[in-house]
Amino acid sequence: MPIATIEWVNNSVKIINQKRLPFRLEFIYCRSLKRLWKAIKTLEVRGAPALGIAASLGVVLAAVNSRAKTTACFRRDLHRAIRYLSVSRPTAVNLFNALKRMEGLIGRHKNSSIAQLKKILLQEAQKIISEDQLACRRMAKFGAKLIKNNDSLLTLCNAGSLATADYGTALGVMYRAREEGKYIKVFSCETRPLLQGARLTTWELLRENIDTTLICDNMAAFLMAQKKIDKIFVGADRIAANGDTANKIGTYNLAILAKYHQVPFYVVAPFSTFDLNIKNGSLIPIENRNAKEVTEILGKTIAPSGVKVYNPAFDVTPHKLITAIITEMGIINPPFEKNIKKAFKKNVSVR
Amino acid sequence: MPIATIEWVNNSVKIINQKRLPFRLEFIYCRSLKRLWKAIKTLEVRGAPALGIAASLGVVLAAVNSRAKTTACFRRDLHRAIRYLSVSRPTAVNLFNALKRMEGLIGRHKNSSIAQLKKILLQEAQKIISEDQLACRRMAKFGAKLIKNNDSLLTLCNAGSLATADYGTALGVMYRAREEGKYIKVFSCETRPLLQGARLTTWELLRENIDTTLICDNMAAFLMAQKKIDKIFVGADRIAANGDTANKIGTYNLAILAKYHQVPFYVVAPFSTFDLNIKNGSLIPIENRNAKEVTEILGKTIAPSGVKVYNPAFDVTPHKLITAIITEMGIINPPFEKNIKKAFKKNVSVR
Repeated sequence: MPIATIEWVNNSVKIINQKRLPFRLEFIYCRSLKRLWKAIKTLEVRGAPALGIAASLGVVLAAVNSRAKTTACFRRDLHRAIRYLSVSRPTAVNLFNALKRMEGLIGRHKNSSIAQLKKILLQEAQKIISEDQLACRRMAKFGAKLIKNNDSLLTLCNAGSLATADYGTALGVMYRAREEGKYIKVFSCETRPLLQGARLTTWELLRENIDTTLICDNMAAFLMAQKKIDKIFVGADRIAANGDTANKIGTYNLAILAKYHQVPFYVVAPFSTFDLNIKNGSLIPIENRNAKEVTEILGKTIAPSGVKVYNPAFDVTPHKLITAIITEMGIINPPFEKNIKKAFKKNVSVR
Repeated sequence: MPIATIEWVNNSVKIINQKRLPFRLEFIYCRSLKRLWKAIKTLEVRGAPALGIAASLGVVLAAVNSRAKTTACFRRDLHRAIRYLSVSRPTAVNLFNALKRMEGLIGRHKNSSIAQLKKILLQEAQKIISEDQLACRRMAKFGAKLIKNNDSLLTLCNAGSLATADYGTALGVMYRAREEGKYIKVFSCETRPLLQGARLTTWELLRENIDTTLICDNMAAFLMAQKKIDKIFVGADRIAANGDTANKIGTYNLAILAKYHQVPFYVVAPFSTFDLNIKNGSLIPIENRNAKEVTEILGKTIAPSGVKVYNPAFDVTPHKLITAIITEMGIINPPFEKNIKKAFKKNVSVR
């Protein structure tokens, strides 16, 4: 079991400070909602499933910290917290799905006392965490079947234990393959601008003693041309009803390269990352972030002052470039629109 | 006329220290061959045409510094210098083409005195410089015809004045388009690991008041998907007889993306970058560089220690992904093998 990326400890949200990795393993205890919001905004905590958990624990934090004397005031505090959390980061739908769950719960417990609601909300957040843990294990099990002994794999950003409540989405699949005794070699794209691949994924993989090679993002095509990549696994921040997938910037790039070189391209994501209200990827809101993330690397300036910068944090990969989507309920193959609908219909009752 | 990137000044090779840009415009005077070799190796001077000039001036430097008393000893010093320079960097063929020219000259002047040879070698190096200047202007003129008013262009690495004796190859085309009164917008890929796009190309373009936007290398696909790129222009380090082109790592990546999005992809390079002895790109030697270039950015560590690194400095773009090659003798269109042969046949007498 990996170190918990995010958990509820002594009335605070305890997170690994992902901005310090790989240099230091440092924890932050968010005791106020404002501090947690900042942690989300500045990527001290990140990864779509982890953001869902952070959002739900944020509502718990607001409940615990509320000084409301009446249930009406208390509920107002909770709704304010939900609105506040919903304007932290726009792309990962897990965050909104978690907030919706918390909101629904509040709605359904109209007659509960403040103390009861606090307890119910914490239980729900803990349920979101344990569901994510289970989902990680199940995705890993389904995904690992696709990996052969001696496979050479490529990933980008971090879709591992640092992004989830357990051992990850894309990386979970790799960990599971290793547990099954398969030898694998993993190439990690550094993932500019914030270097999650260079800082977080390599850190995780090395801790698990996996053969890890770091590359710059622009080297992936040349690797594929040399037939050095057998499969690509990536996570997701939001999957539309037709399978179009928003994920870390550079994912779309890799998917095109994969198609060109006929390398299978797999998205690994739990149901909580699907947004069936959105028909296709063009409707997914893409976060544009600060220019300094590009012009400064870990505080070091790399470009002349005054240069304009384009810094989308995500891109959208059209479903036709995706080989399959690995979920906790099984592998979804094309045609995605039909098969996603089917998977959700079948499994909503199972959950 | 831009600031000279490389020139012969007072018995030394004066170069702009490209490792200091964009933070400081600093010059290095290489008075010994060893110092010049280090400048080439560490990329204080870089860019295929500039490397050809550096190599030829290196031979001049060896001549000037030789303490030989006899012409036989002097010639031995020159040949030793040529061998030494030939193991500085392997990919850019301009370096080898320039050394071959100097070697041929030495061979043809068997009866010249030491003083005469020194003069002849310097004249030849100056000729290589002026030929490159002329080539830049001519490539720019041919290439600019391809650019329309309001075009949005993409480039990577630095193929500008810092890479040549004049205003560059790929960037020269853009400068010329601007001189012709066309409004252009240029996106510069930062070009990891050594950030020539972020540090050098943006610096050059901003000095010329060109609308410049910096992106991370992995953002190019998403830009193209949004139809924000009309054309791509890149330089080259070596072009094989069939048009396959070695250039800065990431070029092949961009070429695949360009094909996928139907964006024209142009290579801009003088005849001195062609290697007709090499049938196709698979035979071009690709330089692998130090892991630290990836794990440290401008001295700042970005990855856990002990991680393996793959760091090829170049990749090879197959000719079928190239729309056209812009040379000083005109634009070469596909089929490249036939048309490159034709262009060289026709123009060898012209030169």
